[in-house]
Amino acid sequence: MTETNSQEKDKKSRKKKGLVIVNTGDGKGKTTAALGMMMRAWGRGMRVIVVQFIKAKARNGETRAAEKMGIEFIVTGDGFTWNSKDIDKTIARARKGWEMAQALIVSSDYEMIILDELTYPLHFGWLDVEEVIEWLRANKPQMLHLVITGRDAPSELLEFADLVTEAVEIKHPFNEQDIGAQPGVEY
Amino acid sequence: MTETNSQEKDKKSRKKKGLVIVNTGDGKGKTTAALGMMMRAWGRGMRVIVVQFIKAKARNGETRAAEKMGIEFIVTGDGFTWNSKDIDKTIARARKGWEMAQALIVSSDYEMIILDELTYPLHFGWLDVEEVIEWLRANKPQMLHLVITGRDAPSELLEFADLVTEAVEIKHPFNEQDIGAQPGVEY
Repeated sequence: MTETNSQEKDKKSRKKKGLVIVNTGDGKGKTTAALGMMMRAWGRGMRVIVVQFIKAKARNGETRAAEKMGIEFIVTGDGFTWNSKDIDKTIARARKGWEMAQALIVSSDYEMIILDELTYPLHFGWLDVEEVIEWLRANKPQMLHLVITGRDAPSELLEFADLVTEAVEIKHPFNEQDIGAQPGVEY
Repeated sequence: MTETNSQEKDKKSRKKKGLVIVNTGDGKGKTTAALGMMMRAWGRGMRVIVVQFIKAKARNGETRAAEKMGIEFIVTGDGFTWNSKDIDKTIARARKGWEMAQALIVSSDYEMIILDELTYPLHFGWLDVEEVIEWLRANKPQMLHLVITGRDAPSELLEFADLVTEAVEIKHPFNEQDIGAQPGVEY
């Protein structure tokens, strides 16, 4: 059965619900698929926002596109992870980012919130995964779609999520052909 | 190593090349990740276009977004696959779609072309996969990014591609919770 057919079927028996979606795995396409969902939601006039963890502020494809589309894109990281030279500052940024995300989640101002790379602060233990999930269980508005991306998503988060997709790298030009990340494709 | 770090490294040793990218697998996020790449490219002012196979014309999230963004989005299918009541017409549509794609590829008018769901006509044998690949090898402009999505990508296509990601379904609410496809998320 193709997706077209299954989509038709699903439309008939649809229950509406705000989903917790996790895009994880070592392959490419986790943030990319989150951007695609954001584009669909924006196309339908839904209110969307991105809170990006870990990555530093950059004039890349996604931030430029968000600007052109009038989508808020909040960058909370400094580009470092466990290898940060000032790990306390890097951890504080992640915790501050989560506080901002919490405020956005309870605000009811959005129909989709992307928490890009949130898995890393959870994986590194900078945020307590059980506390984050308990908080979401108690506070996430029922109809809000929450999209969380990044490698090494903790098992508790996968358990909590409604939809989990793992991106598996089958073939990658960086490794095999010494080709770099291409602007407009990967960033 | 996080993506942020590897991206930094890759930027330094970057070779520029138009990639052939295949998003395949049974999980969600294949078309979605292609849309995300399109958004990045569009954010950078690159010229992009979508040719969609199989799926019928629809006012969904991606077509609405493309319209708002001024991105051309060509729908060539009628919503049917091997189960079409007029299979000759459905096959003719796919072949016509490929001819249109060929014209766009050689036009040099685009820096990224998305061939959404092209894997199905290849998988069903409506288009000869060896012929398609030979044609691409001879005619694809070197710097053009070509993004091909869909399940059941033929092994010859995976061999030809530069970057292949498989979306693996880990958890899906349609199956487990009887929840339908959500507008703005999946279409």
